[in-house]
Amino acid sequence: MNTDIKNIKKLVIDQSMELDCGKTIKDFPLAYETYGKLNKNKNNAILVFHALTGDQFVTNINPITKREGWWTYAVGPSKAIDTNKYFVICANVLGGCMGSFGPKEINPKTNKVFATTFPVITIKDIVKAQSYLLEHLGIKKLLAVVGGSMGGMQVLQFASLYPDKAYSAIPIACSSSHSAQNIALNELGRQAIMADPDWKKENVSPDKGLAVARMAAHITYLSKQGLQEKFGRKLQDKGSLKFSFDADFQIESYLRYQGANFVDRFDANSYLYITRAMDYFDLEKQFNGNLSLAFKKTKSKFCVISFSSDWLYPTSENKEIVIALNACGANVGFVEINSDKGHDSFLLDVPDFLKTLSQFINSTYDEINNEKRI
Amino acid sequence: MNTDIKNIKKLVIDQSMELDCGKTIKDFPLAYETYGKLNKNKNNAILVFHALTGDQFVTNINPITKREGWWTYAVGPSKAIDTNKYFVICANVLGGCMGSFGPKEINPKTNKVFATTFPVITIKDIVKAQSYLLEHLGIKKLLAVVGGSMGGMQVLQFASLYPDKAYSAIPIACSSSHSAQNIALNELGRQAIMADPDWKKENVSPDKGLAVARMAAHITYLSKQGLQEKFGRKLQDKGSLKFSFDADFQIESYLRYQGANFVDRFDANSYLYITRAMDYFDLEKQFNGNLSLAFKKTKSKFCVISFSSDWLYPTSENKEIVIALNACGANVGFVEINSDKGHDSFLLDVPDFLKTLSQFINSTYDEINNEKRI
Repeated sequence: MNTDIKNIKKLVIDQSMELDCGKTIKDFPLAYETYGKLNKNKNNAILVFHALTGDQFVTNINPITKREGWWTYAVGPSKAIDTNKYFVICANVLGGCMGSFGPKEINPKTNKVFATTFPVITIKDIVKAQSYLLEHLGIKKLLAVVGGSMGGMQVLQFASLYPDKAYSAIPIACSSSHSAQNIALNELGRQAIMADPDWKKENVSPDKGLAVARMAAHITYLSKQGLQEKFGRKLQDKGSLKFSFDADFQIESYLRYQGANFVDRFDANSYLYITRAMDYFDLEKQFNGNLSLAFKKTKSKFCVISFSSDWLYPTSENKEIVIALNACGANVGFVEINSDKGHDSFLLDVPDFLKTLSQFINSTYDEINNEKRI
Repeated sequence: MNTDIKNIKKLVIDQSMELDCGKTIKDFPLAYETYGKLNKNKNNAILVFHALTGDQFVTNINPITKREGWWTYAVGPSKAIDTNKYFVICANVLGGCMGSFGPKEINPKTNKVFATTFPVITIKDIVKAQSYLLEHLGIKKLLAVVGGSMGGMQVLQFASLYPDKAYSAIPIACSSSHSAQNIALNELGRQAIMADPDWKKENVSPDKGLAVARMAAHITYLSKQGLQEKFGRKLQDKGSLKFSFDADFQIESYLRYQGANFVDRFDANSYLYITRAMDYFDLEKQFNGNLSLAFKKTKSKFCVISFSSDWLYPTSENKEIVIALNACGANVGFVEINSDKGHDSFLLDVPDFLKTLSQFINSTYDEINNEKRI
């Protein structure tokens, strides 16, 4: 990746934080971005958690990649998460590569990048690091924590760790622990990276392996039906087959583009560490096999959202979260949104989803401000 | 791969055969195996087509790999395809790496392996080559053509090309053309191989890339539910997580084993050529967009079989074949077998499937011999 990330907003966390692996980190940076303004009562803040390959640049143009932020459909002025009304915070996760403490950072002891000497981190570590950011911003209670995919896992972990720090929690298209299939798919990506002889070399990136990992992941983000409707068997050249290994079909060309494009903005070791954190996440196990206990003390109101064509985190897995929340008497709503866009639906223009998001957040805000909705 | 394939049965086809790509091949080998005996009336022969990574060694111990044949559950004495009763033939496909004409063969003009100078072949080419084998064996009409996955595509192509050469046809877990998702998954495998710097080098195999391709494919052969039941989140070491990138979960270790194991028996270029043939297969397109016309002249009786948890070739795609066969008045039966074993079900011990196979073949045999079934 070739990005200049020197001039982005960072908080250096000067407290000691013990990681799940047993190591302690201190004086580590957390890069973050905010949108909108914190109100006087400090009750309009929404913490957005990003997914595997996201970053803190939720909306507007990402100053590093020069592309649109990853959640532009959902966040911005007059959008579902309205930055005219709410104060939106997003931090690059621990282990990430957009300025937060991760394998791409320089180890001051060796003056070399950490690379694979970086400690293996967990979703819990990722969430705990962000609590320091909330302290720094002077926010005692968030209006909402929200995120899709790995962002949703952070929502669940946050709600469990800090039962009184968010009025509402919106886990989207996620799971309380990775299925064997999802571990397998992540392992495939890791193996593709680790198979690249440029992996572990200094000053070189295993771009080919990382591109293959991205292609694999990209297939899982889309639904079979969505792919069929968008690409089917359409050819690159309208004429005929080339009888070669060049991209004949549009879907091949699209995948190659997705792979090639990704390596410019992402670090291969971050990919390893973050997928590992996802695979390790097991909220049920944190509570001795009883997921419901994870939410026993929660005061948050939940809205769990899944998508009909998401086969990576299918509705059934989202429903398990709902069942656990119900079992401990939590306030929980659940919506399955009809969409043929697969797991990626949460990032795209899916009106029913955006409407659900907006209504839930607005009603929570109204409730805590004792306002009647029109 | 390290296999000694000198002493296997081969037919050298001395006729010219024009390939779909426009090139003509001649004097090319087709490696094959037979099981059981051809009867006097020569009406007990069953041509089995193998899938992507299969070969001619359907049952018993494969003399090259020293492992069991790939369809041992279905083929053998007193098995569903009973070799005490039937004469079973299977050829290694054109483009394969078990003795048939493929990229691993030596080009007599250069004295080097063909590798990527081998012509791009199609399912039609693969099937046409096997018709020479039938001629050689003196078989005018087969009792059945049968195969799963890419083997099923060959069944469909055979039935279309030779409407009077098989009493029955059994396409299993297949499709009349690859969906965008299946093309994407094959392209992923090809990209993994082509990303390996050892690809295209002489006397070296891109083993790491090929292993990644195999891991990707292997995930698609199993169902989400099947993986969950077999592996779930079981750890390699019962203790705790290792906080490293070693295999923590059993599913990771299993995938790594599948990848490492595969490179010993398969050629990376064969993988490229055969997946290409699968992606190019489009029986509907061969008949100007009307799949039904492919079977217009067929005299074969069909039994189409799908598996409930197969997401690679889901029941819906198998049903399209049934619809096309019905539309042209062909004799067709259809069964969806309940199984949580995913696409791989056709290779495994799935009693309902094996019973269906056996009953259909036996009843066809009885019919053509004018026997009443007890």
